[in-house]
Amino acid sequence: MMEKIEFDYSQRLSKLWTKLDESNIDVVFLPASQSDLEYFTGLGRRLPSFGNIGYTNHWISGAFISPGNDPLFVLTRHFQEFDLPDGIAGEVMTANEEDDGGEIFRKAFDSYTRKANTVAMGARPGQESCGHEEGAVNRIALSGRSWAETTIELRNHKPEADFVVADTIINQIRRIKDEQEIALMRQSAKIVDDVFADVEKMVVSGITELELSSEIDLRMRQHGSLGASFDTGVWAMGPELGRDASVRVSNDSLKSGAGVSFDFGAITQGYCSDFGRTIHIGTPNEEYERVYDLVIAAQEAGRQAAVPGATGGDVHRATRAVIEEGGYGDWFRHRTGHCIGLDVHELPYISEEDNTPLEPGMLFTIEPSVFWPGRVGVRVEDVFLMTETGTTSINTHANDLVAN
Amino acid sequence: MMEKIEFDYSQRLSKLWTKLDESNIDVVFLPASQSDLEYFTGLGRRLPSFGNIGYTNHWISGAFISPGNDPLFVLTRHFQEFDLPDGIAGEVMTANEEDDGGEIFRKAFDSYTRKANTVAMGARPGQESCGHEEGAVNRIALSGRSWAETTIELRNHKPEADFVVADTIINQIRRIKDEQEIALMRQSAKIVDDVFADVEKMVVSGITELELSSEIDLRMRQHGSLGASFDTGVWAMGPELGRDASVRVSNDSLKSGAGVSFDFGAITQGYCSDFGRTIHIGTPNEEYERVYDLVIAAQEAGRQAAVPGATGGDVHRATRAVIEEGGYGDWFRHRTGHCIGLDVHELPYISEEDNTPLEPGMLFTIEPSVFWPGRVGVRVEDVFLMTETGTTSINTHANDLVAN
Repeated sequence: MMEKIEFDYSQRLSKLWTKLDESNIDVVFLPASQSDLEYFTGLGRRLPSFGNIGYTNHWISGAFISPGNDPLFVLTRHFQEFDLPDGIAGEVMTANEEDDGGEIFRKAFDSYTRKANTVAMGARPGQESCGHEEGAVNRIALSGRSWAETTIELRNHKPEADFVVADTIINQIRRIKDEQEIALMRQSAKIVDDVFADVEKMVVSGITELELSSEIDLRMRQHGSLGASFDTGVWAMGPELGRDASVRVSNDSLKSGAGVSFDFGAITQGYCSDFGRTIHIGTPNEEYERVYDLVIAAQEAGRQAAVPGATGGDVHRATRAVIEEGGYGDWFRHRTGHCIGLDVHELPYISEEDNTPLEPGMLFTIEPSVFWPGRVGVRVEDVFLMTETGTTSINTHANDLVAN
Repeated sequence: MMEKIEFDYSQRLSKLWTKLDESNIDVVFLPASQSDLEYFTGLGRRLPSFGNIGYTNHWISGAFISPGNDPLFVLTRHFQEFDLPDGIAGEVMTANEEDDGGEIFRKAFDSYTRKANTVAMGARPGQESCGHEEGAVNRIALSGRSWAETTIELRNHKPEADFVVADTIINQIRRIKDEQEIALMRQSAKIVDDVFADVEKMVVSGITELELSSEIDLRMRQHGSLGASFDTGVWAMGPELGRDASVRVSNDSLKSGAGVSFDFGAITQGYCSDFGRTIHIGTPNEEYERVYDLVIAAQEAGRQAAVPGATGGDVHRATRAVIEEGGYGDWFRHRTGHCIGLDVHELPYISEEDNTPLEPGMLFTIEPSVFWPGRVGVRVEDVFLMTETGTTSINTHANDLVAN
């Protein structure tokens, strides 16, 4: 396991302030338990819950940030006491269960934005005539996955303000990873490589998909991961199996003649990996071998297309072309990949519709597949890092055809 | 494992229509991957992801419902193809990756609300003068955890409309469980009882917390659970350990002299359980025994206070009084419990501030604890069902002091 990295949050905040200024945004709300807040303040996320957990006043949880000002956290007492084992650095307004959360939230907003209007580093366009008026807030941004409840409360508090989604400008900052982030991404990639080296040998007739996914989840945590970065998938496809990739794991025992696809990732200080391989049980038929080679060739074509300035669409089309030319285009049923970092799927996407030029410092998956229920299933996925001199996988596990 | 239960969604929808009418709500948006949509339409949830997953146009995903009308789903192609293994029953508008999701979303909203204004079963108060005007929508509700992005898009589309959170009226429907739901809750409780009967014996010196949590997660799924209803917690506290309950699981080996608390739940057709026990390793000291007895007595006091018409606050105070009188009030640091169903934490809460009268058909946890880092940690939790004749646990696992 690696040493904990200390980030320079002031540098990240400074970038955010600039972006907010450029977009005439007076204040942004970043909700708790989401990656934007972790990125800018270090407030970590707990593992997610299938059934919602909630406390009275839970909707207030998050932080306000305005240009030139440190964050103001607004949190429930319960969340602070039980969901933040590492504590919290910064100014906090706390709501107890018996408090009127709305009142505390509005008071936090008003006091913070009043301060912001007074001390912000520079006047912002469009606000020249009222920049020093108490509480003048014309434009409020929120992370796209903030709660509707928070959004509606803010709207009722400031009915005349513009409301915008902050994701685009925040992504412009987050999508380029620095050396510290790349080190953490490499560590999350190493965890899945190391775990798969052991688990790969266990892919034999008789074991269940569930037992394999459980082994993966346990071993990732033993290797230092907080947990699985998304729900681990282990699914068998083949001529004897009608099952599709949409059922991510079953309690079925594996049998000879199946291609068993794996899709899983680890977490290091919030940074996620995402890895895929397919292992065959028994001697593969001719179609499986052909499809396996196609998928590997498609991934390599995508890698070669991934040069600085190319778009996600370009990489997708280069990858897809190989599978289409091989005659399996109808069964490559999804985009080629996505950027990755604190979230598993980050923009830009490696997908037909994405026109964002790729840049050095971006990390993204190239994960072509052929999923044809009742015939054949193959997926191979690695995370690639773009640099000035080329695009290479940060995963090291081999991708040769393996038949156990 | 039990047979799949078929719900009567039309009956549930009918209750929602009535509530919407009573609140003058013209249309409600229920987001995908949340329990409200599952409750009213059967659209299931996948296991959650630590790092967000997302697709182009993902923010549109969910359904509109207006009084008298069946739901209109708005979904991305990718979500339909890979995240809904059971398919979908009902009318769907689909956005591909290359589509303008905003345009499809607004078109869906307009066509659905136009239809609603024409065919809705009855005129709604406050809308008498414009009830038949095309597209008249004065009041829009959303589930509280809908995305801000969806909320902002709706607001920009209908800037004059009122926006409200639907959670209170939906909870009024969901909080009373019918016989089918109670059967599913019993099944989820049975899974945790059965799993813990096996795992309890494994709580000995040398095993790690992580190995125990992994065993629990695997066995719950082998017993038919979709997964863990929330992140499984296994944590040791005691005189030799400074650790608090906020660190839910570690890779540490267990040692004699620790009380090991468990907190986990299963999922059956979306319905969640939530269960807690504490097992001691080695002979407990006098304080552990005293605290264990206190916690059990507190839970029983809460159960006895839980009669129809009592509030969550009443039950909380009755539970808390026992621990306060025993001298450990400062270390009972959270509310006593919460209702439970498709979500883990549902309203009403068994908490000081909750004044909702409890009613037959509600299921809720009573989960007192004493968490005193460096001294003692004990938590016991069961799910209780209120009926006309009494409140009883649906868990059957014993709660006697166990020392392995």
